[in-house]
Amino acid sequence: MARHDGREATELRNIQIEKDYLIHPEGSVLITVGQTKVICTATIEAKVPHFLRGQGKGWVTAEYSMLPRATNQRTQREASRGKIGGRTMEIQRLIGRALRAVIDLEKLGERTIWVDCDVIQADGGTRTASITGAFVALSLACAKLDLPVFPVTDYLAATSVGVLEEAGAVLDLDYSEDSKAEVDMNLVMTGAGQFVEIQGTGEEATFSRAQLNELLDLGEAGIQRLVAVQKEVLGDISSRIGEKAGTIQ
Amino acid sequence: MARHDGREATELRNIQIEKDYLIHPEGSVLITVGQTKVICTATIEAKVPHFLRGQGKGWVTAEYSMLPRATNQRTQREASRGKIGGRTMEIQRLIGRALRAVIDLEKLGERTIWVDCDVIQADGGTRTASITGAFVALSLACAKLDLPVFPVTDYLAATSVGVLEEAGAVLDLDYSEDSKAEVDMNLVMTGAGQFVEIQGTGEEATFSRAQLNELLDLGEAGIQRLVAVQKEVLGDISSRIGEKAGTIQ
Amino acid sequence: MARHDGREATELRNIQIEKDYLIHPEGSVLITVGQTKVICTATIEAKVPHFLRGQGKGWVTAEYSMLPRATNQRTQREASRGKIGGRTMEIQRLIGRALRAVIDLEKLGERTIWVDCDVIQADGGTRTASITGAFVALSLACAKLDLPVFPVTDYLAATSVGVLEEAGAVLDLDYSEDSKAEVDMNLVMTGAGQFVEIQGTGEEATFSRAQLNELLDLGEAGIQRLVAVQKEVLGDISSRIGEKAGTIQ
Amino acid sequence: MARHDGREATELRNIQIEKDYLIHPEGSVLITVGQTKVICTATIEAKVPHFLRGQGKGWVTAEYSMLPRATNQRTQREASRGKIGGRTMEIQRLIGRALRAVIDLEKLGERTIWVDCDVIQADGGTRTASITGAFVALSLACAKLDLPVFPVTDYLAATSVGVLEEAGAVLDLDYSEDSKAEVDMNLVMTGAGQFVEIQGTGEEATFSRAQLNELLDLGEAGIQRLVAVQKEVLGDISSRIGEKAGTIQ
Amino acid sequence: MARHDGREATELRNIQIEKDYLIHPEGSVLITVGQTKVICTATIEAKVPHFLRGQGKGWVTAEYSMLPRATNQRTQREASRGKIGGRTMEIQRLIGRALRAVIDLEKLGERTIWVDCDVIQADGGTRTASITGAFVALSLACAKLDLPVFPVTDYLAATSVGVLEEAGAVLDLDYSEDSKAEVDMNLVMTGAGQFVEIQGTGEEATFSRAQLNELLDLGEAGIQRLVAVQKEVLGDISSRIGEKAGTIQ
Amino acid sequence: MARHDGREATELRNIQIEKDYLIHPEGSVLITVGQTKVICTATIEAKVPHFLRGQGKGWVTAEYSMLPRATNQRTQREASRGKIGGRTMEIQRLIGRALRAVIDLEKLGERTIWVDCDVIQADGGTRTASITGAFVALSLACAKLDLPVFPVTDYLAATSVGVLEEAGAVLDLDYSEDSKAEVDMNLVMTGAGQFVEIQGTGEEATFSRAQLNELLDLGEAGIQRLVAVQKEVLGDISSRIGEKAGTIQ
Repeated sequence: MARHDGREATELRNIQIEKDYLIHPEGSVLITVGQTKVICTATIEAKVPHFLRGQGKGWVTAEYSMLPRATNQRTQREASRGKIGGRTMEIQRLIGRALRAVIDLEKLGERTIWVDCDVIQADGGTRTASITGAFVALSLACAKLDLPVFPVTDYLAATSVGVLEEAGAVLDLDYSEDSKAEVDMNLVMTGAGQFVEIQGTGEEATFSRAQLNELLDLGEAGIQRLVAVQKEVLGDISSRIGEKAGTIQ
Repeated sequence: MARHDGREATELRNIQIEKDYLIHPEGSVLITVGQTKVICTATIEAKVPHFLRGQGKGWVTAEYSMLPRATNQRTQREASRGKIGGRTMEIQRLIGRALRAVIDLEKLGERTIWVDCDVIQADGGTRTASITGAFVALSLACAKLDLPVFPVTDYLAATSVGVLEEAGAVLDLDYSEDSKAEVDMNLVMTGAGQFVEIQGTGEEATFSRAQLNELLDLGEAGIQRLVAVQKEVLGDISSRIGEKAGTIQ
Repeated sequence: MARHDGREATELRNIQIEKDYLIHPEGSVLITVGQTKVICTATIEAKVPHFLRGQGKGWVTAEYSMLPRATNQRTQREASRGKIGGRTMEIQRLIGRALRAVIDLEKLGERTIWVDCDVIQADGGTRTASITGAFVALSLACAKLDLPVFPVTDYLAATSVGVLEEAGAVLDLDYSEDSKAEVDMNLVMTGAGQFVEIQGTGEEATFSRAQLNELLDLGEAGIQRLVAVQKEVLGDISSRIGEKAGTIQ
Repeated sequence: MARHDGREATELRNIQIEKDYLIHPEGSVLITVGQTKVICTATIEAKVPHFLRGQGKGWVTAEYSMLPRATNQRTQREASRGKIGGRTMEIQRLIGRALRAVIDLEKLGERTIWVDCDVIQADGGTRTASITGAFVALSLACAKLDLPVFPVTDYLAATSVGVLEEAGAVLDLDYSEDSKAEVDMNLVMTGAGQFVEIQGTGEEATFSRAQLNELLDLGEAGIQRLVAVQKEVLGDISSRIGEKAGTIQ
Repeated sequence: MARHDGREATELRNIQIEKDYLIHPEGSVLITVGQTKVICTATIEAKVPHFLRGQGKGWVTAEYSMLPRATNQRTQREASRGKIGGRTMEIQRLIGRALRAVIDLEKLGERTIWVDCDVIQADGGTRTASITGAFVALSLACAKLDLPVFPVTDYLAATSVGVLEEAGAVLDLDYSEDSKAEVDMNLVMTGAGQFVEIQGTGEEATFSRAQLNELLDLGEAGIQRLVAVQKEVLGDISSRIGEKAGTIQ
Repeated sequence: MARHDGREATELRNIQIEKDYLIHPEGSVLITVGQTKVICTATIEAKVPHFLRGQGKGWVTAEYSMLPRATNQRTQREASRGKIGGRTMEIQRLIGRALRAVIDLEKLGERTIWVDCDVIQADGGTRTASITGAFVALSLACAKLDLPVFPVTDYLAATSVGVLEEAGAVLDLDYSEDSKAEVDMNLVMTGAGQFVEIQGTGEEATFSRAQLNELLDLGEAGIQRLVAVQKEVLGDISSRIGEKAGTIQ
């Protein structure tokens, strides 16, 4: 049965990545996935957190936030509530961890890259759009550093897959799909087709091993298409990312 | 002597107001003033704060924030620090107070309008751009309400004026001018040419009554031009704003 | 190659679940998994959170904490720091979500069950031990309610799997294994062998689909053994949990 | 028409400044303006904030607070609420900024002067009384430092002006006047008659340029009388403040 | 051997209680004990905390604070630190508990009395001066209520006793004595000579039963003299406090 | 008249101290006093707080907490509320101060001992059980340090005494007794029979000097029995605690 917006089960939403979106950051993009829009920036700081000092290694960390009216109902600002919520913490830890899987921290040297993902408009998949966009912002920022070896070792992109009652397993859920999905899974993979993160949740439900395999197949295919978009946006910088990167082996 | 970007002392930067910038809010704009960009949204909530309940009156309140990399150096998020800084508080109180001067709260009825001003890119004048943009978002949101009398009573716009050592009194300072100005003044005025707020500060310096008068003249002229832009952007809604509004009397 | 404590790759650590460990809570256990010890309690409150009022449904929520010297180095209390860390938030959200997959919230009625998991001693796998123990505490608490239909619909247990350089894929990692694992995955499953949560992370590394499958096989087998321990501890209450529960189908 | 307490429109309330009010601080006063009473202290610390280290310059910063029963209704303590409100932040930033306009930070050397303004009893004009009193406390503290050149360069005082429906433009509003004023303006000026701060607000109303000029005239005259009181209180120290200080030029 | 200020071991410092010190509160005093000065106010609120609603009983609660420069070194404001320190909490809990021992909460009716003790200048004994002063403020506030039976049942006053190396057991320690005392004890007693609180601490030292008895003798005598001062200050209100109150039995 | 659990007025509850309860801390016990159970740990850190640096002295500090379901009703976590309550602060300050009375901080050297008391199950007397248990954990930790002179100078134990309407003065109150006691007193004493802390409170009531003496007699006897238990548990370490320690003189 068809999806509410007419997409095939295996179809991504429209993707656009506008690079150098802002004038100040070392790297920045506006990524649009359907109606979801996220500004991703990468800032290079010439020092590392306490626990890494003097080891010659760098660090990548991420922060994530939504504008109050990115959502259909206005959400109270975390600054007003005086603390960061659990969902935000989970997402920003995920983004940072995922990016660190494709950056050689020794080659980065004693620098921190701060990645900021600010959701301007939300329609499902904000954390995966953030990862896909942040990878590009991070690569743009690294290209501004005069390093002997480019520290980015492979592409990195993310998408969601899920199970809908009426449509079965589908790729890249928008908000209306996500809110009624029985199973919801976020996948982060490299250009070479390796897994970085799998986060699958039965939403007050459960799923079988067979369903899991079907979802993984959908996600792998979708991520390869996202990587193709990243390559095109990065242009010349692409050639500096590891030779075998972006090739399923 | 000329300003660093070649503008006349009496010249505003380029202004653009893109209306209905986001899909979710009742009113939204992206306002661009030179390199300063602010997303302003207006959200209508069908209740009022505690202190107004049962009085048949509405309320307008504002929140202001900057993305971490809106600025040249990354600024730590207020949510991460766990509290809102003094500068942010001052600005959001100013925006709310200013907007309340041109809205008839009785005609609004028992509703709150939440105005959110999120600075995407900062190059000086973020608080005045926020007010100028927020007025349009607020008017767009009010136009969605089915009210017998339109509650917006006049236009409202804001700009800055200041004294530079090399150029004397100038209009609409960008960041590089603002950071070395001897006197810095923000003006909020109505379409009819009345003052709503004057905030003038000798930045570790002082200013004379004569200088004050020169600055007020510059600001009045600039605000009339901002109001003209607002009128054009609002189109048909313009006719619903008070009859004499926007006319110097 | 052998694991540092002589276990087979497919072997769990010793498990003990001491039920009714405390006198005050409606349900409580001390679960011991190797050297990891967690006190899990379930508290029944006769009301539900705001967002559920008047719907005739209940809620299950969880909190997780570690004593400062549960760990090898003393950890500062979150109460002293004035906020709950990201790791704690992630874990307590996971525990609550997982438990809600095997409880019929309509049958629970307008009640909240607060599950508290307090780690007395940590040696890896504290979040999975918490889930396995919390399920028993929750079932004990439900048995104290005089409900027409028992609201727990199946068993729920969790364990970790991971990839070690020297030993390959292994089950139930202790702290020394976990801290050097290349891949780390937490699995939560039901007695019927359905997945509730998969959280797999390449720790600054990545993993292939083949490795994923090997890990899932190990985890499924381990969880069935944990469910067997739960059944024995619950004794008579076991018969009240859904008929087909605990049977791979 | 007369004011409710019989004052002329151009008349200040009774002013008293009791110097060396406390035994511990380097400078302290109790300032009384009508029924408004503020304890102002100045503390000298032999270091500067991070952003000024090693520049040979000093710093002046201010904090402001009200006792809970300074007001007619008890106000909850900000320490109990765990955060400082927006109004308090605005006021303490204003006090600090204003004082820095009349102190030569290079001549102060690498020292911080902490100014504390604690309102014991409030009846309108607490921020302007704080500035007028703080100036004296600051001067007393500077006189205790053995500096080659006295760092205070001119007098500094503040008052409010406003527009009342029944009495027109008036000077130095008390609480009952302030709470119904249509326009409310705070002025901070030097002894030489220069402006340091103008903060004028139409309280959900607006004001014309002509009204603004009338208010500025009233305020200038009032501040000169406040400076005369400061001179008398400071006695011998007066001669150390800049030669031309306190003289309209 | 003599005390540093020439007092006998059994001698209190000079005491003054200035009643109706502020215009707004229902009851207020400035209490001066030597160089220690505390403003104590009592505020009557026409409701009680949640846990007492509908029981026909009232409540008395206290808050305590020090101005930053009440002390020799400036103390950071608790509002700035965002939390109330342990010492402040201990003291305000003590003040509230002590006052509740001499007020009949049923006779007070469903009202809360908020007692605020703000230390303007500190020279030892701020918590005991707060209790002695707060009792008078509380009685003044109760006298403003039109109650059939006066709810204050006896006098209440407090002082400190301690052991000094050079002078042995002494009454009413000032700051210089307190900071080197081996034993430090605060006593709160009623007019009838009953104990309300004893808090005795060996400051990194210990004390014998014999020393304890000597200290209690000194304290009892001192408190009777404080009660005499309270009686005189309260004047006519004195006759409304319980008939046998203030008489050792 | 008999106590509800059949104890004599002079009788302690059953005491057990299980030493080396946890594997990670330098010293740890589980102390059980009737139904009250507290885990006490001592952690040695090789540095001291700021205010002690460079003086060659050590420090002992304590933290106290209760698991949410240690109590009959679930208590919200202080970490969730974002701040530590007044009662907790009072207790942890008391524990730290008491322990410092029997440790020679010079002999400890520049080290901090962190004592953590976590109440697993509460039935009255948690603060006194914490002190009695913490003393043993502290001694165990000190025994792991290779110090020329053992820094613990005497035993330290604590108990409560109180006045019950039906049973008069009694020793070691459980929760049901404590909650209706007219007078409640906590005593901390050394093995040599010296007082370290006396905290006696008339709970909205008062007590006479005669009652005070009766309570002190009961408490002294109880503490001697607690010290005897500590000696037995410490075994060989006992001989390293000051020669005359634990002997009434």
